[in-house]
Amino acid sequence: MQEELLLTPGPTPIARRTYQAMSQGIFGHRTQRFKDLSASIQDRLKPVFGTDQDVVILTATGTSTLEAAMVNLVAPGDDIVIIVSGVFGEKFKIIAERYNYKVHIYDVEWGEAADPEAFKTFLSKLDSVQAVFTQACETSTSVLHPLKELGQVVQEYDQYTLFIVDAVSALGGADIHMERDGIDCLVTGSQKALMLPPGLGFVGINDKALDKINQGPETRYYLDLRMYLASLEEDYTPQTPAVTLYQGLDDVLDIIHEEGLENVYKRHIKMQKMLRAGLRALDLKPLVDDDAASPTVTAVSSNEEEIALIKDSLAQDYGISIAGGQKILAGKIVRIGHMGFMFPKDMLTILSALEAILSQSRQKDYYGKAIAAAQGAVK
Amino acid sequence: MQEELLLTPGPTPIARRTYQAMSQGIFGHRTQRFKDLSASIQDRLKPVFGTDQDVVILTATGTSTLEAAMVNLVAPGDDIVIIVSGVFGEKFKIIAERYNYKVHIYDVEWGEAADPEAFKTFLSKLDSVQAVFTQACETSTSVLHPLKELGQVVQEYDQYTLFIVDAVSALGGADIHMERDGIDCLVTGSQKALMLPPGLGFVGINDKALDKINQGPETRYYLDLRMYLASLEEDYTPQTPAVTLYQGLDDVLDIIHEEGLENVYKRHIKMQKMLRAGLRALDLKPLVDDDAASPTVTAVSSNEEEIALIKDSLAQDYGISIAGGQKILAGKIVRIGHMGFMFPKDMLTILSALEAILSQSRQKDYYGKAIAAAQGAVK
Repeated sequence: MQEELLLTPGPTPIARRTYQAMSQGIFGHRTQRFKDLSASIQDRLKPVFGTDQDVVILTATGTSTLEAAMVNLVAPGDDIVIIVSGVFGEKFKIIAERYNYKVHIYDVEWGEAADPEAFKTFLSKLDSVQAVFTQACETSTSVLHPLKELGQVVQEYDQYTLFIVDAVSALGGADIHMERDGIDCLVTGSQKALMLPPGLGFVGINDKALDKINQGPETRYYLDLRMYLASLEEDYTPQTPAVTLYQGLDDVLDIIHEEGLENVYKRHIKMQKMLRAGLRALDLKPLVDDDAASPTVTAVSSNEEEIALIKDSLAQDYGISIAGGQKILAGKIVRIGHMGFMFPKDMLTILSALEAILSQSRQKDYYGKAIAAAQGAVK
Repeated sequence: MQEELLLTPGPTPIARRTYQAMSQGIFGHRTQRFKDLSASIQDRLKPVFGTDQDVVILTATGTSTLEAAMVNLVAPGDDIVIIVSGVFGEKFKIIAERYNYKVHIYDVEWGEAADPEAFKTFLSKLDSVQAVFTQACETSTSVLHPLKELGQVVQEYDQYTLFIVDAVSALGGADIHMERDGIDCLVTGSQKALMLPPGLGFVGINDKALDKINQGPETRYYLDLRMYLASLEEDYTPQTPAVTLYQGLDDVLDIIHEEGLENVYKRHIKMQKMLRAGLRALDLKPLVDDDAASPTVTAVSSNEEEIALIKDSLAQDYGISIAGGQKILAGKIVRIGHMGFMFPKDMLTILSALEAILSQSRQKDYYGKAIAAAQGAVK
């Protein structure tokens, strides 16, 4: 049986060398060896986040970091704004409903990016907002929000308002930088552009967020960032960490820095351009306009029958896995991941498979068209 | 460089075949393949817990399951009893302090097991206790509490009082069975006797506990067991699960059932007996009396100088890692793990290394003594 080509927006493929790193042999976490590993990881993780501060690593999945960012940075009764543009914006909303916040939702049409000017107007009508939450890439629609511009709006609204960004399907693929973009707290998971299995969550925090955490109310135990920060000062973790995933993290950080962060971002944009041009040559319409498209995932629209055909035929005939739509987009889109350990050749592979599938199903000659368009887009 | 022989009470060694299972290639969690894996895991996991109910699997470490058991099963204002006999009993206490429970501590001297009769007297003086929390094995002292007897005391006190057991360093090594032992909620982590890396937490619940969960207050998001239970009905998880650890879990459950649960328990008792007899032949005193000793870990006392010598020399001269004491037992004991993917030959290895180390340091002839005693103990 062939090996699956996993082109979903998470989990994403893992390099053989990373599997080997995670299989080298587990060791104790209360050791100098673990301290050294932890310190070395921080050195190489901080530039990925664009911060000088240590990044908190939780043994848990991305969702836990959304909750950790909320519960550690916002006190009950606080006013918060959530930008909701898809399923993961709604997840912020669902988590917030469990706490006694005053939640203001800034709704963005699914498939569109938040408009900084319109958001500025929305925000200006609210008093004393403590924090603004948004996705970087809304994985369910494949939009990348204009973080830097949004960060500036938040900063201009009130220098004490926190800008909190869920970059689960973006960090390590899209060019995001906490300092440059005015992000006070940046969270992500291990299983997307960071090329690891699911099981680690990351919380980047700047001084402003750190002050808030230290002044904030006592948090529930497992997600209490103060506890992790106190341990981090000695390169420890308060609980047993996922040691094998740390070993993998050690390796993927090497992979990232060997390629160079700038080259990583360029590769992701290249894959995005190839794919979008190729899909259009196949008369398939990306859900998101070019200027709002994420470099990590692309949603593409078609009718329900063709959506099912594409997904099933890619899987059954070619062993290529992609994702469908979620909630109101179910049956209306497929989503193709192009992040992490994925490469331009994988874009050619899926496009050539789509050429074959659609040439047959539509009785039309697409052979060579998508590949030529993909090549043309990045010449 | 030699490979480390990891004889700590967690993390514990991982079989090569399990590493391979975790490296076979990751796949999506919103697939039939994942559903099938999840269902198959449940079939083989339930007998390990001694329950007919599905076991909730969290992507998080053991500590999170202690908090999940607490926050989902006890409402603010409830009276709870925590049996504290070491560091992990104190962890229950620390978590409980974050919530508004009325906490009654039943203190047991570190190194001793809870006495069911004395506990019965303690409990009888309290009104309307909603839940009793205890460790199965208190990892910091290597005691195994008499769960069945304690469960009976709780049941006789009030049929609605929940008996909640942290079996992090016991389940899969010690003979524990939810139904037989009257345990309403049994929690554990992946990285001890279950032979996996850290990163999965397990929560076994019976009907009585399920009723309480369903009637209970809304819980914070990531640890909300109702959410996991609802997903489990369709063999799903609410968030991205640690897929590679599920692949590993699939394999270790095969390992366990190939050996047979009864044989697994016998092997653990055998290792415990070999080790204790061998240690005594070396004039080293186990911290815990025979009738209270855990089959998964053994703490052994000596003076501070010898404790340091043993730990350092095992590591440096022989590549064998063991653990030291925690909190008030720091510098007073070492702890040797004998659980999960550890075997009688590993007991011979560490005992022969200790023969060599102590023969030299004490200028006394221990050669062959520990090995002979170990063999004699299990003849």
